Amino acid sequence: MPLDLTAIAESIAMPDEAAGEAARRRQMRLTKPAGALGRLEEVSAWVAAVQGQCPPRDFTQAVVVVFAGDHGIAREGVSAYPPEVTAQMVLNFVAGGAAINVLARQAGARVRVVDMSVDTDYSDFGGVPADVVEYKVRRSTGVIGREPAMSLDEAEAAFVAGMAIADDEVDRGADLLITGDMGIGNTTPTAALVAILTRSEIVNVVGRGTGIDDAAWMLKCAAVRDAARRGRPLKADPIALLAEVTGPDLAAMTGFLVQAAVRRTPVLLDGVVSGACALVAHRIAHHAKHWWAASHRSTEPAHTASLARLGLEPLLDLELRLGEGTGAALALPLLNAAAATLREMATFDEAGVSDRDG
Amino acid sequence: MPLDLTAIAESIAMPDEAAGEAARRRQMRLTKPAGALGRLEEVSAWVAAVQGQCPPRDFTQAVVVVFAGDHGIAREGVSAYPPEVTAQMVLNFVAGGAAINVLARQAGARVRVVDMSVDTDYSDFGGVPADVVEYKVRRSTGVIGREPAMSLDEAEAAFVAGMAIADDEVDRGADLLITGDMGIGNTTPTAALVAILTRSEIVNVVGRGTGIDDAAWMLKCAAVRDAARRGRPLKADPIALLAEVTGPDLAAMTGFLVQAAVRRTPVLLDGVVSGACALVAHRIAHHAKHWWAASHRSTEPAHTASLARLGLEPLLDLELRLGEGTGAALALPLLNAAAATLREMATFDEAGVSDRDG
Repeated sequence: MPLDLTAIAESIAMPDEAAGEAARRRQMRLTKPAGALGRLEEVSAWVAAVQGQCPPRDFTQAVVVVFAGDHGIAREGVSAYPPEVTAQMVLNFVAGGAAINVLARQAGARVRVVDMSVDTDYSDFGGVPADVVEYKVRRSTGVIGREPAMSLDEAEAAFVAGMAIADDEVDRGADLLITGDMGIGNTTPTAALVAILTRSEIVNVVGRGTGIDDAAWMLKCAAVRDAARRGRPLKADPIALLAEVTGPDLAAMTGFLVQAAVRRTPVLLDGVVSGACALVAHRIAHHAKHWWAASHRSTEPAHTASLARLGLEPLLDLELRLGEGTGAALALPLLNAAAATLREMATFDEAGVSDRDG
Repeated sequence: MPLDLTAIAESIAMPDEAAGEAARRRQMRLTKPAGALGRLEEVSAWVAAVQGQCPPRDFTQAVVVVFAGDHGIAREGVSAYPPEVTAQMVLNFVAGGAAINVLARQAGARVRVVDMSVDTDYSDFGGVPADVVEYKVRRSTGVIGREPAMSLDEAEAAFVAGMAIADDEVDRGADLLITGDMGIGNTTPTAALVAILTRSEIVNVVGRGTGIDDAAWMLKCAAVRDAARRGRPLKADPIALLAEVTGPDLAAMTGFLVQAAVRRTPVLLDGVVSGACALVAHRIAHHAKHWWAASHRSTEPAHTASLARLGLEPLLDLELRLGEGTGAALALPLLNAAAATLREMATFDEAGVSDRDG
């Protein structure tokens, strides 16, 4: 059965606007000046809407899914780190020693790493748990500066895998999904996607990634320019676009974002890679973004471009540029704090406090 | 024994810079690109320095102290809420229904409310616990647009009370102090302090407080202008300045900030009132600010002015304007997250991950 993106998009409902509106009305009655909790008030309404209830619950079953993959372009000098680091970091996630493991623990979230296209079979490392490689599509990708990242079949398989992972986590009880990424070189396909989908100048969306110097930045710009030139005509065909300029990791994250919305499950987006995949998912399904919130603004310029296009305002701006889902894990307590105000604060009437008309 | 501010200031030590430096070095060895955790890395170094150890612990004994007081100027149309709300909110804090109660619970912090100068004896409300009024100096204040807020003796008593409260909380085991405020009209003395201590134009430091209209804003500007005119010559005498233009609540918070530093205990500052008191405390003791971190940037313009003067960069910018310590409670998880990265993340060596030179 071919993948019918139109049917998928049409199956996406909007969050429960009545619950959101009830939250906004309740914020007006809580014992504080109207609007004094600032952006937390609108966040509380979003949480109520995506949960379909006011007051909303805390998110206690949040899951960070880290989509890992290698990128052929990383062998061409666009990253400060060797490609081997992707596989090493997958093992670090499995062992629990990476930043996202630590920050997810602090926030009460679980971490799942899925190897979509890491350039190893782990035989040098004594293997990894089977579920890590369950959806693996291939090892690394084509060099996007001069060739497609992957075939159409591979892109579709990865996209469908991302959907399956979302289904799997929702079926297991996840109440919030967080998009994470790991892959040396992955900000290069990310910049290509953002350049294409926001019609940005290449130099305005190519950042320093893990911390590259000027020479590497120029190589990266050239690769993004060449990839974007081939990708632009494919804008109307999201799977073809993903195949040409990204990789299985980004294709899977895109499917994951779409399917989360199908399953009426909110997503907390992380950084620049999440933002680029969200742009593609938004082209597929315009309603989907109402199920997403932006956690933070990364220092990568492509992130600001994609957030602006999506109309999402991030909660944090801490100059992060790590990926993995780290910014989203840091923002998760803010969602729960917002929900708690609706649930636990006294109203003017309950507390016997005079309102401004009192 | 007269209050010897110079001796107090001289007793303040700097945080442990060796622990801070160890944290910065450790961040370089953790499995992520150097600097990729952005501002969280510098926060982790601050936490290490104020705790005097690397890696640092989580803050598990944080206490929000809400300094409550009424202000005579509130009877003159500078607030959107009636002055009675201050007392009603004290009862709301005691009952656990205010925003700070909810957000402190979410963050794992305790709340203590101290009535320094609320305009009630609570006889209409069936009383309050004795410790709420233990340090009370007076009921309300003079109208600062035309008269001193309080006497020198009252200002000194309030300042010393704030010091005693800091001592008390540190002796009870607090590992982080948070400054909260409640008082209808308290952004008026706050603006006067900030105008004086940052040499700002009055109109640039007077905000909308709880949400006042243009007419009330003009009345507020006039009151701040008149108070600032009387307060400016007193800049070199912090107690006299506090007496002239503030109130027992702000004087107590100032003493609290100084004494926290004396006791080598970190403080997470909240919003515009905390920022103004920090300016006074900074004049008293220049080393003290190394023990303070700024949690958020409020929408009140005087807050931005005071943060700039203090050289403190806030962690959050969520358009809050509530006070009570709410912004600080929201930022507390970020401090613990930063500490956790130092404590729990694997190093490149431990995880077998190649560094950029690898």
